[in-house]
Amino acid sequence: LESLKKSHCGFQGPHVFVLFGASGDLAKKKIYPTLWWLFRDKLLPENTLIIGYARSELNVGDIRKHFEEYCKVRKDDEQQKAAFEEFVNRNTYISGKYDTDEGFISLNNAIEQTEELYKKPAKRLFYLAVPPNVFEPVSAMISKHCMDKGGDAWTRVVIEKPFGHDDVSSKKLSDHLAKLFKEEQIYRIDHYLGKEMVQNLVILRFGNRFISPSWNREHIAAITISFKEDFGTQGRGGYFDESGIIRDVMQNHLMQILTIVAMEKPASLSPEDIRNEKVKVLKCIHPVTEKDIVVGQYTANPNGDNDDSRTGYLEDSQVPKDSITPTFATAVLHVNNERWDGVPFFLRCGKALNERKAEVRIQYKDVAGDIFVEGQLKRDELVIRVQPNEAVYMKLMTKKPGFGFEAEETELDLTYNSRYKNIRLPDAYERLICDLLSGIQYNFVRADELEHAWRIFTPILKTLEEKKTKPHQYIFGSRGPEASDKLMHEHGYIFSGTYKWTPPNKL
Amino acid sequence: LESLKKSHCGFQGPHVFVLFGASGDLAKKKIYPTLWWLFRDKLLPENTLIIGYARSELNVGDIRKHFEEYCKVRKDDEQQKAAFEEFVNRNTYISGKYDTDEGFISLNNAIEQTEELYKKPAKRLFYLAVPPNVFEPVSAMISKHCMDKGGDAWTRVVIEKPFGHDDVSSKKLSDHLAKLFKEEQIYRIDHYLGKEMVQNLVILRFGNRFISPSWNREHIAAITISFKEDFGTQGRGGYFDESGIIRDVMQNHLMQILTIVAMEKPASLSPEDIRNEKVKVLKCIHPVTEKDIVVGQYTANPNGDNDDSRTGYLEDSQVPKDSITPTFATAVLHVNNERWDGVPFFLRCGKALNERKAEVRIQYKDVAGDIFVEGQLKRDELVIRVQPNEAVYMKLMTKKPGFGFEAEETELDLTYNSRYKNIRLPDAYERLICDLLSGIQYNFVRADELEHAWRIFTPILKTLEEKKTKPHQYIFGSRGPEASDKLMHEHGYIFSGTYKWTPPNKL
Amino acid sequence: LESLKKSHCGFQGPHVFVLFGASGDLAKKKIYPTLWWLFRDKLLPENTLIIGYARSELNVGDIRKHFEEYCKVRKDDEQQKAAFEEFVNRNTYISGKYDTDEGFISLNNAIEQTEELYKKPAKRLFYLAVPPNVFEPVSAMISKHCMDKGGDAWTRVVIEKPFGHDDVSSKKLSDHLAKLFKEEQIYRIDHYLGKEMVQNLVILRFGNRFISPSWNREHIAAITISFKEDFGTQGRGGYFDESGIIRDVMQNHLMQILTIVAMEKPASLSPEDIRNEKVKVLKCIHPVTEKDIVVGQYTANPNGDNDDSRTGYLEDSQVPKDSITPTFATAVLHVNNERWDGVPFFLRCGKALNERKAEVRIQYKDVAGDIFVEGQLKRDELVIRVQPNEAVYMKLMTKKPGFGFEAEETELDLTYNSRYKNIRLPDAYERLICDLLSGIQYNFVRADELEHAWRIFTPILKTLEEKKTKPHQYIFGSRGPEASDKLMHEHGYIFSGTYKWTPPNKL
Amino acid sequence: LESLKKSHCGFQGPHVFVLFGASGDLAKKKIYPTLWWLFRDKLLPENTLIIGYARSELNVGDIRKHFEEYCKVRKDDEQQKAAFEEFVNRNTYISGKYDTDEGFISLNNAIEQTEELYKKPAKRLFYLAVPPNVFEPVSAMISKHCMDKGGDAWTRVVIEKPFGHDDVSSKKLSDHLAKLFKEEQIYRIDHYLGKEMVQNLVILRFGNRFISPSWNREHIAAITISFKEDFGTQGRGGYFDESGIIRDVMQNHLMQILTIVAMEKPASLSPEDIRNEKVKVLKCIHPVTEKDIVVGQYTANPNGDNDDSRTGYLEDSQVPKDSITPTFATAVLHVNNERWDGVPFFLRCGKALNERKAEVRIQYKDVAGDIFVEGQLKRDELVIRVQPNEAVYMKLMTKKPGFGFEAEETELDLTYNSRYKNIRLPDAYERLICDLLSGIQYNFVRADELEHAWRIFTPILKTLEEKKTKPHQYIFGSRGPEASDKLMHEHGYIFSGTYKWTPPNKL
Repeated sequence: LESLKKSHCGFQGPHVFVLFGASGDLAKKKIYPTLWWLFRDKLLPENTLIIGYARSELNVGDIRKHFEEYCKVRKDDEQQKAAFEEFVNRNTYISGKYDTDEGFISLNNAIEQTEELYKKPAKRLFYLAVPPNVFEPVSAMISKHCMDKGGDAWTRVVIEKPFGHDDVSSKKLSDHLAKLFKEEQIYRIDHYLGKEMVQNLVILRFGNRFISPSWNREHIAAITISFKEDFGTQGRGGYFDESGIIRDVMQNHLMQILTIVAMEKPASLSPEDIRNEKVKVLKCIHPVTEKDIVVGQYTANPNGDNDDSRTGYLEDSQVPKDSITPTFATAVLHVNNERWDGVPFFLRCGKALNERKAEVRIQYKDVAGDIFVEGQLKRDELVIRVQPNEAVYMKLMTKKPGFGFEAEETELDLTYNSRYKNIRLPDAYERLICDLLSGIQYNFVRADELEHAWRIFTPILKTLEEKKTKPHQYIFGSRGPEASDKLMHEHGYIFSGTYKWTPPNKL
Repeated sequence: LESLKKSHCGFQGPHVFVLFGASGDLAKKKIYPTLWWLFRDKLLPENTLIIGYARSELNVGDIRKHFEEYCKVRKDDEQQKAAFEEFVNRNTYISGKYDTDEGFISLNNAIEQTEELYKKPAKRLFYLAVPPNVFEPVSAMISKHCMDKGGDAWTRVVIEKPFGHDDVSSKKLSDHLAKLFKEEQIYRIDHYLGKEMVQNLVILRFGNRFISPSWNREHIAAITISFKEDFGTQGRGGYFDESGIIRDVMQNHLMQILTIVAMEKPASLSPEDIRNEKVKVLKCIHPVTEKDIVVGQYTANPNGDNDDSRTGYLEDSQVPKDSITPTFATAVLHVNNERWDGVPFFLRCGKALNERKAEVRIQYKDVAGDIFVEGQLKRDELVIRVQPNEAVYMKLMTKKPGFGFEAEETELDLTYNSRYKNIRLPDAYERLICDLLSGIQYNFVRADELEHAWRIFTPILKTLEEKKTKPHQYIFGSRGPEASDKLMHEHGYIFSGTYKWTPPNKL
Repeated sequence: LESLKKSHCGFQGPHVFVLFGASGDLAKKKIYPTLWWLFRDKLLPENTLIIGYARSELNVGDIRKHFEEYCKVRKDDEQQKAAFEEFVNRNTYISGKYDTDEGFISLNNAIEQTEELYKKPAKRLFYLAVPPNVFEPVSAMISKHCMDKGGDAWTRVVIEKPFGHDDVSSKKLSDHLAKLFKEEQIYRIDHYLGKEMVQNLVILRFGNRFISPSWNREHIAAITISFKEDFGTQGRGGYFDESGIIRDVMQNHLMQILTIVAMEKPASLSPEDIRNEKVKVLKCIHPVTEKDIVVGQYTANPNGDNDDSRTGYLEDSQVPKDSITPTFATAVLHVNNERWDGVPFFLRCGKALNERKAEVRIQYKDVAGDIFVEGQLKRDELVIRVQPNEAVYMKLMTKKPGFGFEAEETELDLTYNSRYKNIRLPDAYERLICDLLSGIQYNFVRADELEHAWRIFTPILKTLEEKKTKPHQYIFGSRGPEASDKLMHEHGYIFSGTYKWTPPNKL
Repeated sequence: LESLKKSHCGFQGPHVFVLFGASGDLAKKKIYPTLWWLFRDKLLPENTLIIGYARSELNVGDIRKHFEEYCKVRKDDEQQKAAFEEFVNRNTYISGKYDTDEGFISLNNAIEQTEELYKKPAKRLFYLAVPPNVFEPVSAMISKHCMDKGGDAWTRVVIEKPFGHDDVSSKKLSDHLAKLFKEEQIYRIDHYLGKEMVQNLVILRFGNRFISPSWNREHIAAITISFKEDFGTQGRGGYFDESGIIRDVMQNHLMQILTIVAMEKPASLSPEDIRNEKVKVLKCIHPVTEKDIVVGQYTANPNGDNDDSRTGYLEDSQVPKDSITPTFATAVLHVNNERWDGVPFFLRCGKALNERKAEVRIQYKDVAGDIFVEGQLKRDELVIRVQPNEAVYMKLMTKKPGFGFEAEETELDLTYNSRYKNIRLPDAYERLICDLLSGIQYNFVRADELEHAWRIFTPILKTLEEKKTKPHQYIFGSRGPEASDKLMHEHGYIFSGTYKWTPPNKL
């Protein structure tokens, strides 16, 4: 942290952080609090001005009221309270439309005032926390009125998903942005790329000699990337129903993790080299077809212990009664290259399941030339648990302690909350905004990554929609539809279920 | 344990356990207590008669007095106390010479009485807890008078090291035994083979798919097998001075571990197949030469906190003042086969060092094509800790938790005393006596293993003795002579010292 | 050759080569001529006496008449003719029974005369070119009367197949011999082990760095060991009908080749180390079951151009009309160890096929992550052709020469008769008799190899015989039964048939 | 060829091939004849107009006289002679300056006439066979006046080396072109990429399963890419002296081959994917430093059999007496990635050497765990011979044929001129012009490849020039300076010299 602070102290001159959609939910719940935490920990550049921009007629005081409750300022800490006031003073607010010149002219004036104050061109960061339908006008206006003045200044435009609804709409947006900005000015956020364990994947893979020899088709039977939620739509399924779990989670978050798990070692750790490798992986993946996927939709669990679980997806009042939107999906993908030819990559995600968990699970093949009693050896598995309770563990066979010579399952374990008890793992947004300011692009999505992810998923999305495919039903709180386990089994994954991980602090 | 008990219940007919040297130290401190523990846990065959045999005129009562204090019978447990009395009743004692017929005739008579009692030929186990100079007469007499009566009965002869003093004397003993018994009747004990983690090596290596791809010269930089004691001769260095650390530890215990670490996967887990592979490893090792070894001898530590540590080896009253016997040695060996060509195997052992520890440490090579900041990556290491605190851990690189993207060392851990809290790990002797009774020979040393171990070490022992090579001095309580670290470094081992293992219960 | 001659000149003292069955076919067609060729090329020890022994009342002159025509003495070469006379002078003949003492006493007297002449104990080699039913009496008599006198002399007993008819009879013979001789005195000939290319397998495999990385289950799809004859029983099928092709070729010759192809690198090139590895392979092979084998029997080809081909097997007058003896067999075996787990080894042999050929064909797997037009790449194959026309060639893909960028099949070639035009490749018997004299045992079959080979094949032989399984019919001159190709295909062998090897001298 | 013709018949509409520098040497000796050969073999698009352009006042007839002699029209073939006349009729000539508008306006008019004739926009190919100092004006004028009219038409600009003299000048040219054209319109010719065997490298590497497992640092000791000429400057060293062998051969031709040898398997065979991989290799190479290179300059061989060889480089009248320009260089490069870390890549090139040869030589490491007599095994080598006599051969160890069991060197061979006797291998220029017309860019150099090649070589070129480093002298006709062999040896290359390749037609 100290070294990071030092590097940030190196930030020269004024920075302006413009937050479009300043009055919205994302802004108040995530962006403003994150900026505060960075400020508090001295991770924001010293001379940073934060400009909220939205259509509502508001002032800084109103905005503050919006976000203050999410900032978790310690009431009992006078110093922190004073710092928070200082933070609020760094803020200003402009009310303006998203598609006319006036507001953007005012915005630029405000930025130029800062530049005059500091006698230096400002570094300009525009964060579009706005609905996708205004991405185009806002970005066009930024390009028209608000670009930086050169020198060592820069302009960065940040957008959040959804980046289109399918290949065509995504390409339209990419082309639009490409005309206005250079690729290195565009930062597409996938907040999964900000997770500790996702970032750790690169170091685990390329920093350890004992891992690389087995990280390939010869030794790995299957790779599963899971994202499970234990809650449903909670009565607010309207927005979700338009996208579904594939667009919401699989096509972006899980595919991002897949590319990091599967990519070749890049020429360097530079963002371009890393993203080149990720795209190379995507190029080797064929579009998902019907036989590669199982989709599900949850039904009510009459015995559930809360409203959410006693409500089936179709019973959510915001969801059409005949909706075929999947709330669960398992897809099997293949990376047709020398390293992975024949190895199934399972992407599995769903709402209303039996647990909340995101993890990458590498299942090794059976031992060749097994000399033990048949059936005694279980497959090794390397698990990288993204959330909750970050952990890395290797399930392996050991001698059953004591007399005799039997093998049994155990694990080599690295559990963050026992090993790194006193370290605060920053939130994904904190990391990503830090990276934004430092111009480190590898945790952001490049246009060609996006293009390929849509190439892979658009056909199946179309097929499901056109054929009005009924999802498999599964009960709220279950493991998801059986067809999912079946698909994985058919592609060579073996679920032995004989071992259950116990966090070491529970031992 | 239950399954083991069951298998032992299968033992048919009478067993006779004859313990030569019944009045000696080994018998009272180790063998009798171990028999008791096995009896207590119902791991001895039901109809077992224990016959003590020695030259002293004693009776069972005397013997009992000898060993009772080492048996740790729980005073507060009436049931256990009763069991102990029962155990004592299984014992008898015969006084006789080791080199004349009479005693052995009596012994055989005693065994035959048991056979008559049970109307079945007895299984006969002769444990030679006697000095090596009587191995030959005792074994000859056993062969002459005491062999089993056939059927499903058997005769097994157990000897403890030293198995000779060099290649010639060892061969003489082997040839002598070979004339009297078949190889499958001979059990040479190396108690290191009874250690939990040594036995686990076979399962870790051959039961786990993720280990085999890197278990070779392409990925491993060095293998170190260490045995460190933190005490000296304690004023009783007389016997030790005749053998020295190489004969005492390196040539037998450490070589046994080496062969298990290095061997190819056997055709099966049968003792013959495993021992064939161990011998194959030995065949590929050239004799140790002077440039392959560093020997040391400890000196007093004036600041030591007990008499032992304030006494240098040469100051032990039982040790000749000009002794050149090594109390420490590090040797580098090479296994010249396809798997290990070029990989140094370090055997390191010593008395009076800074800690008490026995472990196998596999150091992996540097990551090839390192893309991290130079010097950031440290080498992965897999450590199998034999004693104390059995553990397996993999030191590896992980992302330094938090902001930024630095790599740091951590570990994947399996520590027995946290993971297997409630399991009693049996003592090496318990295991080995169990194996003896079951006729499982793979934890015993075969004649050809012995022959090769002496082939490898006799020349250097001779050279050191003939040249009267002065050992390097090192202070009691240190890491041993610097020349040892230097030898290892020259052969490619990198000691970074940046990581220190913390047992998880200390986290 | 020169170095070989030199090593043979080193042979000290008298040698006696005793040929039992001196009047038989094997003796006259093979053994005597081979001895002559070795004599002619100065590869026999200088003081060698050859004693023919058989029941017939003959003399050396008669014997000479028997074998002279097979010796191919050049009529136009006076020197050679003189040498031949000298060779004949080295011969003597004893007539005696195989199961009574007299003959063997005479034999021993004859040997002792030689010893007296040279004042040295003779090295004694007994070659049993006799039917298997006299193996036991002859060997017993040798052991009783004719053993060497010690010193640097030795006794070697040579036998030819069949070594039993099944596991039981083979074990009986082995046990009988084991009681009379040490294993190192017994030389079981499998003349396939004397073939140039079979011997070359060891050097190709262990002498070339580019071969070892791919010689395993990860890269090899299938290994086929073929032995094809283009002729039938030629009206003399009586003896063959009692054994069949499995006993005649598969269980011995093909299994021998299999073990050499599959074995791990031995600790050294010593015969014991090599044979240990061969046995280790055999231990990992399960017995052949019905589903692993296809057997065939040839029928007449009405359009054949000779009597043999116009006669079906059952039409051979020596063959019972209802014989179910296979004249063709393809079996698939698996070596269940780390290297070969899952790789099919096909043993294929037959009479009356479309060609005469013996070869080992290693078929590599498909390229992983194929980036070429689908179907363009064919599998690489390494072929070691044992006979006729010794060759090694690697079928591989190359750019189709000229414009464009297509791949096509070609080969890397080593054809002996173009590359080694002027080198005489010795006959298998010449090599083996040389090895016999030098005491090099690795080209002879050890008892445990035999035991395992029978363990693997006896059950299927029994099953076929007990169930009276009808072999598939195939026409004389065809590729054998279709079921054979089907079996191979089902186990993953791909016959593309798109490439045909052209010997370079035909280019 | 037939399939190629067919694909070319697919060329729609008019094509115009504009040849700048039409009166120069390259045009008359190479480009015009190549166009004729393609025309003759019906490999030019049907409606192709060839426009020569140069400053000289000439007409088509003059130009024809220039190039006719290099066209090798068969005098005795009336049909071919007629075809040649037809070819000449496809030609026209425009005289104009390279840096003023007039000529280019005329040129464009001429192209537009063709377009009017065919009623279709013409595909326009501009070949700059002109000195580098006019690259900039010519390309600017093309961009200004002569670009295609859209639709399915296109514009391609072809340039030949030198692409700059160092990193700065090369970047200047690249930037200049980048402003005028898109990268996919620019074709930088390195005629080495048109060689049969260079193109074959991709298929050999990625089309053969047996090659990939050993194509890496674990198995390869060294890779040598050689380019040797057996003639000197022949009295015309003026131009050469300005560049030297590093710029002339090493930095371009040899580096191109290196990247193809070293690259990872691309995501597909598309030009962009292949060139991405080539650039990835370059990124992993550090600039060459003084200790990585040996430079040489040839001296006269007094015993030479022609003027060239009796003249030292400094005696060439066009060369300054104190020139330090290298005529020979050996550099060792390292590709610091996972595959190649530690493996030396030797680039070796020179004039006036003992032979004319270009080849890639892969030397494998020593066999690990060698069980043969020490020194008997030589290293395997895979050789791809680019010129003359295209061949692929694997030098390997085989059993010395005959008695005994020694290993000796031999080879697996694929020699084009015996295996592909009747196939015409097209000239590099023919291939490249075909590719130009088809728009296949992978055999042309991309801007970033160029940038990296200069990054690697500019520092050493500067150092040599600034320090006025004297090259090692070597005699015309020798193997080059000894220091070169020494450098290679120090980096682990073993030259055994025990094997000499004999083309099979010489056997």
